[in-house]
Amino acid sequence: MLPRGRPRALGAAALLLLLLLLIGFFLLGGDPECERLEPDGRAGDLGCPRCPLTPRVPSDGRLRGASALDGDPLAGHWDHNRSACDPWPQLPPKCELLHVAIVCAGHNSSREVITLVKSLLFYRKNPLHLHLVTDAVARNILETLFRTWMVPALGVSFYHADQLKPQISWIPNKHYSGLYGLMKLVLPGILPPGLARVIVLDTDVTFASDIAELWALFAHFSDKQVIGLVENQSDWYLGNLWKNHRPWPALGRGFNTGVILLWLDRLRQVGWEQMWTLTAQRELLTLAATSLADQDIFNAVIKEHPELVQPLPCIWNVQLSDHTRAEHCYSEAADLKVIHWNSPKKVRVKNKHAGSFRNFYLTFLGYDGNLLRRELFGCPSQTLPEAEQLQRALAQLDEEDACFEFRQQQLTVHRVHITFLPHKPPPPRPHDITLVAQLSMDRLQMLEALCRHWPGPMSLALYLTDAEAQQFLHFVEASPVLSARQDVAYHVVYREGPLYPVNQLRNVALAQALTPYVFLSDIDFLPAYSLYDYLRASIEQLELGSRRKAALVVPAFETLRYRFTFPSSKAELLALLDSGSLYTFRYHEWPQGHAPTDYARWREAQAPYRVQWAADYEPYVVVPRDCPRYDPRFVGFGWNKVAHIVELDAQEFELLVLPEAFTIHLPHAPSLDISRFRSSSTYRDCLQALKEEFHQDLSRRYGAAALKYLTALQQPRSPA
Amino acid sequence: MLPRGRPRALGAAALLLLLLLLIGFFLLGGDPECERLEPDGRAGDLGCPRCPLTPRVPSDGRLRGASALDGDPLAGHWDHNRSACDPWPQLPPKCELLHVAIVCAGHNSSREVITLVKSLLFYRKNPLHLHLVTDAVARNILETLFRTWMVPALGVSFYHADQLKPQISWIPNKHYSGLYGLMKLVLPGILPPGLARVIVLDTDVTFASDIAELWALFAHFSDKQVIGLVENQSDWYLGNLWKNHRPWPALGRGFNTGVILLWLDRLRQVGWEQMWTLTAQRELLTLAATSLADQDIFNAVIKEHPELVQPLPCIWNVQLSDHTRAEHCYSEAADLKVIHWNSPKKVRVKNKHAGSFRNFYLTFLGYDGNLLRRELFGCPSQTLPEAEQLQRALAQLDEEDACFEFRQQQLTVHRVHITFLPHKPPPPRPHDITLVAQLSMDRLQMLEALCRHWPGPMSLALYLTDAEAQQFLHFVEASPVLSARQDVAYHVVYREGPLYPVNQLRNVALAQALTPYVFLSDIDFLPAYSLYDYLRASIEQLELGSRRKAALVVPAFETLRYRFTFPSSKAELLALLDSGSLYTFRYHEWPQGHAPTDYARWREAQAPYRVQWAADYEPYVVVPRDCPRYDPRFVGFGWNKVAHIVELDAQEFELLVLPEAFTIHLPHAPSLDISRFRSSSTYRDCLQALKEEFHQDLSRRYGAAALKYLTALQQPRSPA
Repeated sequence: MLPRGRPRALGAAALLLLLLLLIGFFLLGGDPECERLEPDGRAGDLGCPRCPLTPRVPSDGRLRGASALDGDPLAGHWDHNRSACDPWPQLPPKCELLHVAIVCAGHNSSREVITLVKSLLFYRKNPLHLHLVTDAVARNILETLFRTWMVPALGVSFYHADQLKPQISWIPNKHYSGLYGLMKLVLPGILPPGLARVIVLDTDVTFASDIAELWALFAHFSDKQVIGLVENQSDWYLGNLWKNHRPWPALGRGFNTGVILLWLDRLRQVGWEQMWTLTAQRELLTLAATSLADQDIFNAVIKEHPELVQPLPCIWNVQLSDHTRAEHCYSEAADLKVIHWNSPKKVRVKNKHAGSFRNFYLTFLGYDGNLLRRELFGCPSQTLPEAEQLQRALAQLDEEDACFEFRQQQLTVHRVHITFLPHKPPPPRPHDITLVAQLSMDRLQMLEALCRHWPGPMSLALYLTDAEAQQFLHFVEASPVLSARQDVAYHVVYREGPLYPVNQLRNVALAQALTPYVFLSDIDFLPAYSLYDYLRASIEQLELGSRRKAALVVPAFETLRYRFTFPSSKAELLALLDSGSLYTFRYHEWPQGHAPTDYARWREAQAPYRVQWAADYEPYVVVPRDCPRYDPRFVGFGWNKVAHIVELDAQEFELLVLPEAFTIHLPHAPSLDISRFRSSSTYRDCLQALKEEFHQDLSRRYGAAALKYLTALQQPRSPA
Repeated sequence: MLPRGRPRALGAAALLLLLLLLIGFFLLGGDPECERLEPDGRAGDLGCPRCPLTPRVPSDGRLRGASALDGDPLAGHWDHNRSACDPWPQLPPKCELLHVAIVCAGHNSSREVITLVKSLLFYRKNPLHLHLVTDAVARNILETLFRTWMVPALGVSFYHADQLKPQISWIPNKHYSGLYGLMKLVLPGILPPGLARVIVLDTDVTFASDIAELWALFAHFSDKQVIGLVENQSDWYLGNLWKNHRPWPALGRGFNTGVILLWLDRLRQVGWEQMWTLTAQRELLTLAATSLADQDIFNAVIKEHPELVQPLPCIWNVQLSDHTRAEHCYSEAADLKVIHWNSPKKVRVKNKHAGSFRNFYLTFLGYDGNLLRRELFGCPSQTLPEAEQLQRALAQLDEEDACFEFRQQQLTVHRVHITFLPHKPPPPRPHDITLVAQLSMDRLQMLEALCRHWPGPMSLALYLTDAEAQQFLHFVEASPVLSARQDVAYHVVYREGPLYPVNQLRNVALAQALTPYVFLSDIDFLPAYSLYDYLRASIEQLELGSRRKAALVVPAFETLRYRFTFPSSKAELLALLDSGSLYTFRYHEWPQGHAPTDYARWREAQAPYRVQWAADYEPYVVVPRDCPRYDPRFVGFGWNKVAHIVELDAQEFELLVLPEAFTIHLPHAPSLDISRFRSSSTYRDCLQALKEEFHQDLSRRYGAAALKYLTALQQPRSPA
């Protein structure tokens, strides 16, 4: 095996090195297995032997490493202070792909897993591939999220959790993770056969370092070892926590399965599936159920086959359970690697240092995920085709173009987290209607009132930063009105760019509406209390679904006053209108936006009546949910609804005004964006350019039929 | 030198190790000086010799390391990929104190340095001491900031930049950093004599790793080396950038001084001061001025004394200047360590990968600095006495107490960044008045109007997150009205806790007012256009400063309408009042708050008139700036101004209503906080408890004189 070439130089250098090492050892003295170098720092050049990762499990099965918690200075000493002898094993090459598997189910776990993934991506320097075992809810959320996140050098595969249930549902389990916790046991069978190694993570862990360092610990596995685990940092498995506490069998304190290194191909070779199944079946003869899901079974298998486990340094799974003994670990370590919130209280757990640990979690909870779209310099491109196409399109934009910001904003692919909070899809009903709207943080206080006015399903897109999304979550949790509603779906679209992407937001909310009809509203409008029922009845009466292609117009009004009693009927509304407390919407600034609704006729109307499209008409309408999408080129404030109504008219939707329907705009301070752009002539010019391009597209799609819109455009007016 | 004890075991172990090493080398082959281990990872246990940090500067003065940018595979190879041979030199022991020196002057650099410090603190695991050389402006800002930040294990010392000017002002300099850049040269003379080593940083660098790794490179210095520097990553010093470009002398591409390791005691020994002074004087005989400030002089000295420099790995100062050649460095490195924004365009620099680099910067720009108040586990307590006292007080709170959130909020020490934006103190004028107010993000749109209504100085406290502070900065930059004003001081108080600390905010703004008088206003009020002039004239006429201890009352009104023409005179205001377009403030909900102002009398008044205090009175007043502070126990919404007026009355301030003064409240949506708490009975109960405690304190301080306030309290009314 002597290498070809340079053998002489090699030999000489090696000898020189040995000499230096010898001198080093004699100068420094001490245990050659692992010696801290002197702080004068001169010895660093001399080299230091790699320290053994951990004492091996002795043949008697008593785990020496387990005594780390008891303060045995020998046990786990290699990670208790950093020195030249730290196990800084060879990290995987910079472009090597690392694999991570996570089981995730439901809305709340989906939010949780994103915080974990952010922490992973923040520190990672290698390409990563996530193997996500998900239920339908989590898959729906996470597929959209990762598709729109477009993180370079990140691959994601999904596996159907539901298909795995038969393999584990026979195991009685008392743990709060339910069946999903047990799914970690079957990973060797479901991950691709070519995949040799994987790191398995619980959703409630937070990384505080590069996962490549954890991956590097695979190098310390002996030939027989197949599972890497950190010791359990509580006394649970010692069985002395309370009277009659009878835990599953484990070596000493046992191991925690929040972080697992799985050597998959070896597991398959040793017959893992049969192994854990037999062990579980046998233990279940005397134990009623697993208490800690997969962890009980992993420990029982390891107790029987201690040679399978490679104990990992405690800092790779610092467990902050309610009665944690983790302080023994982290108070001596120089560095935290992975924090595990394995109390049912999660980050709200109370212990001496929880505050400082929580700061790691909060760092990533509020971290702007867009910043993780970082390239890995020097690795072959791992960019997705969509992302590359986007990059090219962005690169082709002219930065000197006055409308550059508009063009850039139109192209921006926003990261989208659909159904951010728990949500129950509405039961299928033939005339049901979802209220569709979008908002940002400054309109959050509208939500409670809106819920009181609209008892039906809603699909709302929220334009937020990651930090604001958390504020929003707390806002909903603190509101009895909001937290009582399971039929309101909140879709978070993460902020990016200087202009409010109003139509992209509307399209997100529209795409997630699950009823046959949608009411396309705006967040600063409160509908009549009866509107939801009245609209459903109208759809049924008008036989919209089958016979007519129509948009039902809901007449819009506004109040300029803060303190305002909402009219409970059309009669009350008309009285307020007559007394000057209410106006028709934008009567003073932009009458053409709603004039075609023909408010005079509406006053008297007893039945729905048809109106004709006219330039700048932008009524609030009810349409089938497969209606045309909003044109995403309109960003910021102006012409965004107008273009949509043009599109409806071009597709020959009848416009039918409903005689009893109304909605009222409440006053609010102008948003920061609108203040910023109202004064800008560039803004107006760019909007004009967008309108012209929109009309060119219309002509292309609808031919001569689109001529009327172009003619109408010839009379320029100021935008809304 | 053979160590006593264990010699035999030692010898055996060493021999075993040598054998293993030999086997390792023969198995792996290649250059023993620095060989990447095989990715199978098995060799990690065998140990690897430490690689030499860098080729030494050869005697011919040609820097071998300099060729790294030319793609010489030998040069700088040790940091081009990570492997077992990475220079992962012994890190300093976990509790060792590391020292950092930074020169910082002015408002903008003070903001910049905070982003740098956040990145430092995020990755650090050691106690740090910052040595800050500052002008008066930066010192004022940073002293307040660090005092209120209370980061554990962080020490800060200040040095007067102005006192150093004579030592360097003789050097002509064309660099944008002005004299301050040159101050790095004199650090060995001004830092404490006992300080042996320090890392010197420019304010425009961002850390992407633990500074202890950089500190560890001191260990690679030879006995003669005193300065550690990274090669300059542009062709500037090659002198071929343009015709007649004549740079200062340097070795090859020279070195960049954005990141410097200074071995201070050795520098003092080698006579550094004389050395650089002589070199600079000599070079200035032929060169007109330094172009790159201290960097030119450092390079000229090193050219003459190459033995002084220890070249550092390029990743410790990745220079993103306009024509950077840094890609040669970072595309091969596995890891970035320090990013240097050394273009005058700073983070707006354009180059291929600037976007990805900017994400590091943006990470810390928007990072919640409160999260950096993390303990260093296992190090002796480095907590400041104030912080310890605070911890104790917080620990004594009863979490079950219904008012726990209030008590916690009262105790919270908010991080404060005074004069966040450039600010010119007003010239001293005897009757000048500063408008004092506080706001959060949802009232930003008031600022422009306020600037139009109040042409005088303002001191505004803004309650923001770190990310919001950046949005605020952009908002001001985008507003011609705001950016034209240098007399408005913005003080950022960083958000922490669930309740709005209204009185703490007022006190911050009040403490920073620099004129003899203050107008204590609220952000949703617009003063009469003439108010600033009128108040100054009134103060002069009433001889407030010398003769009378008085608070001048500015009568308050409100409009409920959004679109509203502001009255330009008292006559116009009275007409609007009569027509029902204006009301006296809170006429409908809380008349007692302003009733004592006696609006009927004000209508007719031609001269200031005195009014008497009454329960719940909370007028807007003008007082000397040394007036009593607001009581910080009132957090959230209620009784916060009332208590302040009680205090003024208790201290025998006359209340004088001005006949021509007025201010008008504009409508706004209720803030999220107020909506949240208006409905809460706990909130009302806690406010009642606070009021009672306030009165107990009053009685203690003012004795029988405070009885009238207590009597008034007996009639409970609802809070504002």
